[in-house]
Parts: sequence; C-alpha cells; structure tokens
Amino acid sequence: MNGAQALLKTLADAGVEVCFTNPGTSEMHFVAALDDEPRLRAVLTLFEGVATGAADGYARMAGKPAATLLHLGCGLGNGLANLHNARKGKVPIVNIVGDHATYHVQYDAQLQSDIETVARNVSPGFVRTSASTAQLGQDAVDAIAAARGRPGQVATLILPADVSWSEGGVPCPPPPPVEPKAADEATVQAIAGILRSGQKTALLLGGHALREPALLAAARLAAATGVKLLAEVFPTRLERGAGLPTIERLAYFAELAGVQLAGLQHLVLVDAKSPVSFFAYPGKASDLVPPGCTMHTLAAPEHDALACLQQLVAALDAGSAQPALQAATRPERPTGELTAAKACQALGHLLPEGAILIDEAITSGQKLGAMTAGAPRHDLLTLTGGAIGQGLPSAVGAAVACPTRPVIVLVGDGAAMYTVQALWTMAREQLHVIGIVFNNASYSVLNIELERVGAGEPGPRSRAQLDLGAPQLDFARLAQGMGVHAVRADSAEAFCAALEYALATPGPHLIEALVPESIRGAKRKVLPWVLGAAPHLPQPVAQALKRAIAP
Amino acid sequence: MNGAQALLKTLADAGVEVCFTNPGTSEMHFVAALDDEPRLRAVLTLFEGVATGAADGYARMAGKPAATLLHLGCGLGNGLANLHNARKGKVPIVNIVGDHATYHVQYDAQLQSDIETVARNVSPGFVRTSASTAQLGQDAVDAIAAARGRPGQVATLILPADVSWSEGGVPCPPPPPVEPKAADEATVQAIAGILRSGQKTALLLGGHALREPALLAAARLAAATGVKLLAEVFPTRLERGAGLPTIERLAYFAELAGVQLAGLQHLVLVDAKSPVSFFAYPGKASDLVPPGCTMHTLAAPEHDALACLQQLVAALDAGSAQPALQAATRPERPTGELTAAKACQALGHLLPEGAILIDEAITSGQKLGAMTAGAPRHDLLTLTGGAIGQGLPSAVGAAVACPTRPVIVLVGDGAAMYTVQALWTMAREQLHVIGIVFNNASYSVLNIELERVGAGEPGPRSRAQLDLGAPQLDFARLAQGMGVHAVRADSAEAFCAALEYALATPGPHLIEALVPESIRGAKRKVLPWVLGAAPHLPQPVAQALKRAIAP
Repeated sequence: MNGAQALLKTLADAGVEVCFTNPGTSEMHFVAALDDEPRLRAVLTLFEGVATGAADGYARMAGKPAATLLHLGCGLGNGLANLHNARKGKVPIVNIVGDHATYHVQYDAQLQSDIETVARNVSPGFVRTSASTAQLGQDAVDAIAAARGRPGQVATLILPADVSWSEGGVPCPPPPPVEPKAADEATVQAIAGILRSGQKTALLLGGHALREPALLAAARLAAATGVKLLAEVFPTRLERGAGLPTIERLAYFAELAGVQLAGLQHLVLVDAKSPVSFFAYPGKASDLVPPGCTMHTLAAPEHDALACLQQLVAALDAGSAQPALQAATRPERPTGELTAAKACQALGHLLPEGAILIDEAITSGQKLGAMTAGAPRHDLLTLTGGAIGQGLPSAVGAAVACPTRPVIVLVGDGAAMYTVQALWTMAREQLHVIGIVFNNASYSVLNIELERVGAGEPGPRSRAQLDLGAPQLDFARLAQGMGVHAVRADSAEAFCAALEYALATPGPHLIEALVPESIRGAKRKVLPWVLGAAPHLPQPVAQALKRAIAP
Repeated sequence: MNGAQALLKTLADAGVEVCFTNPGTSEMHFVAALDDEPRLRAVLTLFEGVATGAADGYARMAGKPAATLLHLGCGLGNGLANLHNARKGKVPIVNIVGDHATYHVQYDAQLQSDIETVARNVSPGFVRTSASTAQLGQDAVDAIAAARGRPGQVATLILPADVSWSEGGVPCPPPPPVEPKAADEATVQAIAGILRSGQKTALLLGGHALREPALLAAARLAAATGVKLLAEVFPTRLERGAGLPTIERLAYFAELAGVQLAGLQHLVLVDAKSPVSFFAYPGKASDLVPPGCTMHTLAAPEHDALACLQQLVAALDAGSAQPALQAATRPERPTGELTAAKACQALGHLLPEGAILIDEAITSGQKLGAMTAGAPRHDLLTLTGGAIGQGLPSAVGAAVACPTRPVIVLVGDGAAMYTVQALWTMAREQLHVIGIVFNNASYSVLNIELERVGAGEPGPRSRAQLDLGAPQLDFARLAQGMGVHAVRADSAEAFCAALEYALATPGPHLIEALVPESIRGAKRKVLPWVLGAAPHLPQPVAQALKRAIAP
C-alpha cells in the first residue's frame, strides 16, 4: 500500500466522504488511489477557489469536513480566499496540498515555493508537511482531529509526491470525537444575574448558536427575561423561517449596527466575537460596543454553545417559557419591471421547505431577509470572511452535502465573476443548484464605500473602476458555456416563471436578474440599504438611524 | 495631499504608467486619487489573478514594471499564482496590496489576515507595510527600486487604508537606474578557454540573454567555436523568427532534455539556472546535468547578460563571425479536419511581423515552435513558473504595453479556465488580442503525467479527474458572455479564415479550436509530443530519445 492509498483509507475511515479537487502532476498518485477507495467521492473543479469554497459549503451543511486536493503553493494561493472564509466561519476543512518530492525541493524547479508560509494565513492552528510515508496516516488523523475540533478550522496537510507514491503507507484509525467544553457555572450564574436585573442586555449569537435548538433556548431566555437577541452579521449557518425563532442580524454598516447596539448595558457573547466594523472609516469607531456597555462571554468558540444556553435557561428557570416563533407568511407574487427587491420578493413567495439559501448578493440582497423571514424553514449561509467569490462554490458543496434539498445562491455580478468556474462543476455533478445573479453592471457596494470612506466626489476615472457596464456581462451565456441551463429575466413575471421552472427541474440552473443599479446619489445610496438590512427594526430605531447617518 | 495622491505621483514620476486593479473598500482612496494623476492608467480586472498576470505580461514587453492594486490578503491570494510566474521569470512588478487601517487590525475584522506572510511567497526580496503617510512616498520608491533591480522581482508594498487616506503625503523622486554587473574578466577568460578547447560545450541562455543582441552575440560564438546553444525551457521573453538566430529550447520532458544535454563536457549558464526536471518522477534524476559535465556561470541573474556575452565574443575574437540566422519560411496553409498541429501550422502560415505570441497551449502547442520558426520576427512569452492561468492575463498586459502589435495567446482548455475573466478586460480595453483556445475536453497533459509518475493503469475514477468532456466547455459562448467576438472552428479552413479575420480586425477575438485529444494510449501519448517539442533534433538524437523512453 502506498502513501496515497493509506491516506485515502484513513480519510474514509474517519468519515471524510468527499474531496474537492484540482490536481496536477504531483497529485497523480492521490488521483490514482481514488480507484481503490470508493468511499471517497472526488468532485473535480476547474479552479482551486471552487474546490475550497465547495469544501466550506459542504462542511457547513454536512457538519463534518470534506477534503480538498490542491496543486502546490500556487494551487493553494488560488484557493486561499475561500479558505479564509472558512477560517473566519470556523468551518472544518482537511486541506491537502500536493508538493514536490522531498528530494526535489533543493532544485528550485519552476513550481517550487514556500507552501507552509502561505498555508499559515488560513491554517494558523495546523500546518504540517508529511515527512514520511509511514507517518502519513497519522498526519492525516491529526489533520482531521484539528479540523473538526471545537472551534472547527482549516487544517493543511502538505503531501510531498514521494511520501504519496512510496510503499509503506499505514492507514490509521479515526481520531476520537471532540467533547466541547461546558460553560463555567459561575459564569452562567453571573450572566443569569444580569438577565434578571432588568438592565438593558443583549445576547449576541454566532457560530453553533444559530441552529434551531440553540435558537429555541435563546428565545426562551428572551421570553422569560426580555433579553434582546442579536445574530452576528455574517452567520456561518443560520436556521430560519416559519416556526423558528426570529433573530435580528447585526448590520454590515457600522452606522446601523451602532443603532442596533445603542443603549445596551451588557452584551453577552454566545459563540460570537465582539462586534467591530467591517472596515475602518475615517473618524468613525472600529469597535462597535457602545460606551458603558459591559461585555460577557457565555460561550467561547471552544464551548458547546447549545449546552451553555441550556445551562443559562436552567439557571433562570426559563425552560417552560414560550419562545416567540416566526409566523408562516409569504410576500405577494411580484409583477412589473424587475428589481433586486422584487427578485427577493419572488424568492420569498416561492421558497420551498428545506431550501439552502446562500447570500452573496451584496447590495442586491437588501430585501432578502425581510422577504424570506416567514417562508418555510431553510438554512442561510453567508460570507463569513468577506472574501468575495464564496457563493457559487459553496453552493456546489452544500448541494453535494444535501442532495435532496434545493440550493439557491444569490450573487452579485461582480462577486459571481471571481469563481464563475463553479457553474461547470454544478453541471458535471448535476447538482440541484439555482444560481441567481443580479446583473446591475456595477460594483455597486463600492459606490457606497467610496462615499463612506470620505474619498471626496469621485471623478470619471475613479467611477470607471466601479463600473462593469462596458461591456455588460451576459451571465446566461456564461452559464450555457459551462453546460448550465440559464435564462435572463428583466420582468418579475419572467423571473418568477424561471424560478418555478428551476425549482421543479432537477439539475443546475442560472437565472440572470437584470436589475437597475438600485442606489444612486449620495443619501439615496446608503439609506435604503441600511434600512433594508434590518427589517425588524422598530420605527424609533429606524428614525434614530436616519439621524445617525445624516451629514 | 493625502498618501494615495503622493503614492500615485511617485509611481508616475518613476515611469510606472499602468496599474492593473481589482479594488475594494480599503483601496478607495487610491481609486479616488486616479482622477488627480492622469499619467497612471488604471486597467480594471474582474479577478486578481488577471491583474497580476497582466502586470507580468506588461513588464515582459514594456521592460519596466506596472503596478497592481489588490484587496487585502484574499486579493493577494487570488493573485498569487501569476505573481509566482513573475517571480520565477524575474519580472518586475510593484505589487500594491491594500490593508485595513493600522488601528483597525487589532479588531480582527472579517477580512483581517496576515498579508505579509502570504506576500513572502512571491516577494522574498521586498515586502513592506507602509507605516506612515509621510514615509509612503519613500516606501514606493524603495519598492520600485527593488522591482526593477537586476534581477527583476515582485516587490510587495502593503498599504494600510489610513496611511492612504491621511494628509501629509510626500511624493519622492524616482530611484536611480540600475547598473547591472559586468562579468569577472577571469571568468570570461576561463570560459573562453573551454570554448577554444573543442570539448563538447553548450551555452544555456535564459532571462535577458534571449533578446536579439544577446542571441546575436551567442550565435557568433557558435559560429566561431562550434559551441551548442540552448535556451531555458520556459523563457520569460524570447525573440525569434526569420532573420534572428535560432536556438533550441530545452524540453519540458526530462527524458528529452536528458538527450539534449547528453555527452556535454561543459555547460555554461548565461542568465539561466542549472537545468532540473520540472517535477520529480520515481526512479528518475531531478538534476538533468549529465555525469561528468562541468558547470560554469558566465552571467548570473544580477549580471548584464548581453555585456557578458560581448566580453566573451571579444575574448574569442569572434566579433566578425557570421551568426547563423533563421531563413524566412512558412508552412503551407493547412486543410481538412482541425488538429492542434494544424492550428499551429495555420499560425505559422499567417503570423504577421511583430506579433507577440504567448504559449500556454500545453500539449496542443507541441508543433508551435517548429511551425513558427521561420515566420516573421516575433516575441514568445511562456509559462515561467508553471502556475497555469498565465496566458490570457499576460496577453492583456502585453497588449497594453504594445498597443500596435497583435497579441496571439494559445491556451489549453483546462488552462484557460483558471483566469477566463481576462476576456472581459480585453473587451473593456478593446485590446487587439487573439485568444486561441484548444478544446480537447481534457487535462491532456495529466494523462501523460499519470503515466510518467508510474501511478499504474488508471481506473475510471482517476481518469474522470482528467476529463473535461461532460459537459464540454463552449469557449465561444464564454467569450461572447464577456463581450469578446468569438467563433468555433473544427476545420483547418474555418480556423484559417477566423485567424485572418481576427488579425485584420481591431479588438479582441477568441477562436475556439475544436481538436481531438491528440494522444491516446501509453507509448502513443508520450513519444509524439516529446519528439515534436524539439523539432531541430538531428536524427541520431531522436533515435537515442526513442531508446531512452522505451520501457
């Protein structure tokens, strides 16, 4: 048994069922070993960023890691952005990077580069170059254990070609399951005291605390004590829809998040980090915690967030409190000229039970939350690390993880182009993914950001850097060129019809929504999106917001 | 004047005329400053790998660096593969990576990552995070000086948003020009002695030694002394065609390169590195220098290769020797069913004077060298670092550098997909680039490599990893989706007609050559390509090669 064969058997024995690949010469023994290990499904991608994004989407839905197979430092570089998103989302991935044979490194051949250095960017907790065929099985076990620890992480195992091809591979048994830590009882009691006190307090939920059981526990706490519930701005996976507790997400815009957090005396973190501005802006605070607000941590990422919430429920005797649940409600079927908001409305009107929604629509998704809030229950995956190009690849992975559930991915035109090659893998694997690309011919969000950073009135040369209109991209044609059924829609009627057809017809689809750039002019740009991003804001808060972002 | 404005003025004053961009929020002040500095042309790309590959292609043809503008660590990651190619080709690039504001780093916001660590992979000689607005101008000068030193390199300047936006920027005067080193006279005399001795000797030319004046000097040495001339396997830029000296390129396949080098008693490096196998293969040597061959270095990368060759010409009194020059000759116009070889033949038949040829055709380019050898003079750019996805982006850069010369880029179907977004920038800038994509529905080279690494007879699951046939990509449609005129050709007649039209019509074109996978079966795969790769091999050498790669 060679190293590659032992590696594949070790992965499969540990329950790693899928490997998203873009191999090269140094990975050929791994590829050849696929014929000996039918438990490991290899999903080919045309670009490494698709492979890593797919591994991210897969793990978010499967609850366990997939492997990747990348080609040396350059393949890792191509996959880095989506590994970054996985790292920030604490998503487990076993990232396998082929390397030259150990004895070949000294010759500095064309593809030689320092792989470990690059890998540390996304795998600070586990980077290892396997040193021998005999140790490779154990290296794989250690990587799997690191990846699926609590918190989850991207574990990078670098696989020299000779370690892979040499005889003497030893498959190793799976690592033991991880036991996440329980909360410290004194911490629970202290936080219970705050919740009892009546002081203005919010729980900020993230990570594993956004799944149904944890949301129910948090909603019981809210019902019993009046504590406010907030979700982190970019959830790794949020369960939502009719019959589940609703939760207000922190806004992307610091101006709005500041309003959401205003007046809090205590903010309790539950598998979330203290809120900060996505970017820095001249003269504005990066730290969004309001002055006078005290921070507490109920559950850190290494804790069992659900158990911690249940401890808190018990401490407050809130087990019988009735959680507020979202009523089933859908928006009307939209009509007339298509806009981004109407596309979101159509989605809310038609969303089937059990859909997986992936949101990389950037400005075009402003109404998505409101329009789908009362739709049948579904999962929402978002851009955890801010590295654009996550949507289409993670849809591949989510569909591989959940083949019986429709995956609907919303992407902006700019965002779609970073990893557009994902469409081909959807066609090759005949995944039931519906891609909705909002074509407004613009890096629309940057028009807002250009203003928010105070860069002055943009001239023609700077505005041209945000314009995707000449030539305008034709996403339907791009999708067709990769074997994906695709249509363009410029009316709400056409969009609804296309969505109904796509939902009813297995295999991948792309719907190109031709929408006007929603936001023009200074104020008209920022306000509607900011307000749309938090549809559950009470009127006084919305008013306060308007004041906050006034000049 | 803010930091960004001072930076742009410093760049422009130093002769940096182009910046290939994919900006985000943290780069908005750089973008805004474009309106104040009309000397710096910003070329927008939809993916960072296009920006970095374009900067590479630009510098190879312009002989000076362009800048890039990338968005934090993830943008750098996306651009890493083509920066790697530039690094290996010793191509100067001023790589500018935006970062969070200095005071924002502590908050570990979504896009926070360790940029310097990633940058070291491609910029081992110069990575600097600019620490203050006042110093930014000098930092830029230092980066420019590092980039355009001898050897050229990728210099990475990390630009925190607040360093960019704060007032107090100070433009700085350009760095002094670089004076490359002359050869040590004792070294020249020693090598002259070897060339006089009649021992079997070759000059291995690379880097700057593949341009006309250096090639002429080398050809005089060959005429005067009989020394063999070889070029490195992947030249950064090779001037060739009718009226120029011809030079045999080392082959990609170690088996063939071994034959080319067999029997040498001395190998003299002229801005080239000692030849090694691209990958390691079980049981085969990585170092291709034959036993008993002594290595010498006439010109290291920090030397002036041309001056070194001229010193050697003087030492051997070879200045009046008549260099052998390539005769003008073109192949016939091909007819019948299209094959990769016939596409190369058509190119040789029609290639105009002054074309820039970029070769990332992988297996489909096997006949390119032979078919274009006697065509009008042209430049050839190749895949210096082996990181696939270089062709289309570098064509963007070459066309920006040389707007009056047609750029013809040959890419394999697999290779084209890594950075296919380059087509959009070609359309946006209306560059006269002719993309020829060989669609054989396969990672064809990996079928060869799977065999060469001795991974055994591939089964269906491993073969599927190399197959791009289901669904087959439609590159004409992909190009049309990005605004590029495109046609598919499956006959030599159609291909010739498309090429003639494209050469005569300004703006970008894509010709999709539908070709059969050229190579099937074990022996039939390796041999024809290996032989085709070195068309100038004498018959005995070809025979030796057949013996060398026999089982």
